[in-house]
Amino acid sequence: MTEIITIGNELTEGRISDTNAKWLAERMTMAGFTVSRISSVRDDRETLAGVIREASGRSDIVILSGGLGPTTDDVTKGALCDLTGSKLVGEKTVFLHIKKMLKERGLKLNENNRKQSEIPEGSKAIANPLGTAPGIWIEKEGKVIVAMPGVPFELENMAEKEVLPRLKATFSTPSSYYRTIMTSGSFEAMLAEILGDFEKQLPSGVSIAYLSSPGVIKLRLGARAGSDNEAREMVEREVEKLNKIIPEYITGYDDETLEMTVGRLLKAAGRSLCTAESSTGGTVSSMIVSVPGSSEYFKGGIVAYSNEFKINLLEIDNTILDKYGAVSRQTVEAMAKNSCRITGSDYSIAVSGIAGPEGGTPAKPVGTVCIAVNSPSGCIAKKFSFGDNRRRNIQRASMAALNMLRKRICEEES
Amino acid sequence: MTEIITIGNELTEGRISDTNAKWLAERMTMAGFTVSRISSVRDDRETLAGVIREASGRSDIVILSGGLGPTTDDVTKGALCDLTGSKLVGEKTVFLHIKKMLKERGLKLNENNRKQSEIPEGSKAIANPLGTAPGIWIEKEGKVIVAMPGVPFELENMAEKEVLPRLKATFSTPSSYYRTIMTSGSFEAMLAEILGDFEKQLPSGVSIAYLSSPGVIKLRLGARAGSDNEAREMVEREVEKLNKIIPEYITGYDDETLEMTVGRLLKAAGRSLCTAESSTGGTVSSMIVSVPGSSEYFKGGIVAYSNEFKINLLEIDNTILDKYGAVSRQTVEAMAKNSCRITGSDYSIAVSGIAGPEGGTPAKPVGTVCIAVNSPSGCIAKKFSFGDNRRRNIQRASMAALNMLRKRICEEES
Repeated sequence: MTEIITIGNELTEGRISDTNAKWLAERMTMAGFTVSRISSVRDDRETLAGVIREASGRSDIVILSGGLGPTTDDVTKGALCDLTGSKLVGEKTVFLHIKKMLKERGLKLNENNRKQSEIPEGSKAIANPLGTAPGIWIEKEGKVIVAMPGVPFELENMAEKEVLPRLKATFSTPSSYYRTIMTSGSFEAMLAEILGDFEKQLPSGVSIAYLSSPGVIKLRLGARAGSDNEAREMVEREVEKLNKIIPEYITGYDDETLEMTVGRLLKAAGRSLCTAESSTGGTVSSMIVSVPGSSEYFKGGIVAYSNEFKINLLEIDNTILDKYGAVSRQTVEAMAKNSCRITGSDYSIAVSGIAGPEGGTPAKPVGTVCIAVNSPSGCIAKKFSFGDNRRRNIQRASMAALNMLRKRICEEES
Repeated sequence: MTEIITIGNELTEGRISDTNAKWLAERMTMAGFTVSRISSVRDDRETLAGVIREASGRSDIVILSGGLGPTTDDVTKGALCDLTGSKLVGEKTVFLHIKKMLKERGLKLNENNRKQSEIPEGSKAIANPLGTAPGIWIEKEGKVIVAMPGVPFELENMAEKEVLPRLKATFSTPSSYYRTIMTSGSFEAMLAEILGDFEKQLPSGVSIAYLSSPGVIKLRLGARAGSDNEAREMVEREVEKLNKIIPEYITGYDDETLEMTVGRLLKAAGRSLCTAESSTGGTVSSMIVSVPGSSEYFKGGIVAYSNEFKINLLEIDNTILDKYGAVSRQTVEAMAKNSCRITGSDYSIAVSGIAGPEGGTPAKPVGTVCIAVNSPSGCIAKKFSFGDNRRRNIQRASMAALNMLRKRICEEES
């Protein structure tokens, strides 16, 4: 069993999200360990020493995050000394590393820096190439207590490079293998119903988890087995079955987001893209641009928020807007076609909807969104209903638009 | 002392962020309670009963979240029965509420629903108008254990309406008052240095917390005192001082985001806005549009990601791009001026930068961003450096652009 303890008043006062605990819990689980408890405690040396003592009484592995800085708030080293009945001693390799880091930044060594190079006697320092606070590894009677700095990128780097490999070498864990399947176009209850029989037939040792966010559900299939190969085969067999059961919902694998998938497909096909957005207000284009290298296929977008903008910049015929309204299949079709023509792009996405809270009518309530995708062979448009929460509405419409584009590219370019 | 316990394997396996714990910790702190520990545990009845027992031994208030659903995974009620030596009994008011909810949704009552209406004997049900799982309130020997459903909006509603008021009525907490000051245009270490003397002179009982995110630092000033009035006065006195020390960084109060501030100022002045974005790819316009009612002042935007787009749609002179490059004060000035002219807007924001990871040069490394704001009285442009992380670079550039616009509107319209 593993326990994670995160340290800091900013956590118990709810000032920040405990991203380190989530990250560590996920990585440890995927490495084959079982996390039985996560605790967040205040910056109090005595309490912390007690909490670590309890945890290491129950569990083989205790991972600490935070409280390793040089200020009086930082109580982790003191708590570890109390626990092990040791005192702090200077660690030369750490001192030299800190000296080198400060020199590179043009800073002078001070008393705080010297303190940072101290670790409890009998423990081992863990290198922190990205910061000045070293990690601490204490091994005793078959149990390990490991402390890492609370700065997320320092902790993640230290965990990946040093702590996880050492823990795997110290404890025998079952071999494990995980695969993430990205899906779009459904919601959790719907997908769970479709996959009811699939879940029932999963062999023991294989697990499935649904990770939902607006417009995207990730399915995580995992297995623990006697060997890496066996675990991988167990999972891949189920992934193949999923590919046959829900091909229309699967957009990618292993954390490839929809905007990354779309980018990959466009690059492979040598095609270009533009956007014409109304209600999503630039969210679709900002997602496309979040992908490094998107300038290879993304020409740009027009955020035609007002009708005036739609008429003047997207050259939408006034009569279409008058007859069908801004939120209509006809309008988004015209937006998609015109944006391709104006910008000389191969593909385009157009979105127009009622994001709310105002602007709904009985015929077109808040949440109504029309999306069109224009491609070399023509234009398709669809009407959706995404509910009355403005933020979620915009997110879901953006994901649906990217998914429509993805499907269209797959059809056209295959 | 208060402890929070969140329940579910999805937490200990790191599949989801523990947003309930953060939310509860923040609200409890702001209500004058001290949260000493947050624990997340697996869906295991026996372990959970033990964890609750320990927590209620140490603390007066134990708040539980999750595990109240009708499936076998849901172990909270069982654990509470184990703890109190009681059994589950049907609660008529809850049963009638569930029956009514299901009827409204056109669903039939089943065995699971009946189970949901049961609570441990001797406890009190807490109404859940937004869902079928009731909350549970157990009061014994001056201590309270309260269980709430894990669905965030159900929990938040129940906590606001029922649990927080009851806890405040049951326990005498110091009066407290909090104020959030929104700042932009600095970073945490810089602001902490500027505010060094201010922090030192803070009277005892008044606290300051820095809540940082890319481009925005919220300062939360809080006080606990004998009366609400006293606490409010203590905080407001310090807020006034802050207004004098860092007026150029303060953008708003009490969670008014920069895009909300900008919207409020534009509405008050009866002015319109458009955007011309390159590297931020629509992020600025999507932020503007995230504010309900933004159609009153936002006409739309042009995401001119390629030079072709800048030339054809923003009518940027080719010679400017050739001479100064796409990332230059000259180019963003032209983008800002032309977008105002083309769309007939009073104000515009233009952004062009090198978001990375590719595209940097020695003269213009990754992170270089130029921003211009055009207003009725002219155009100003600035060059920034936002570091080499693409996502943060885009976020910080977008915040800086909105902040430049905010300052400009304040200068012009006052």
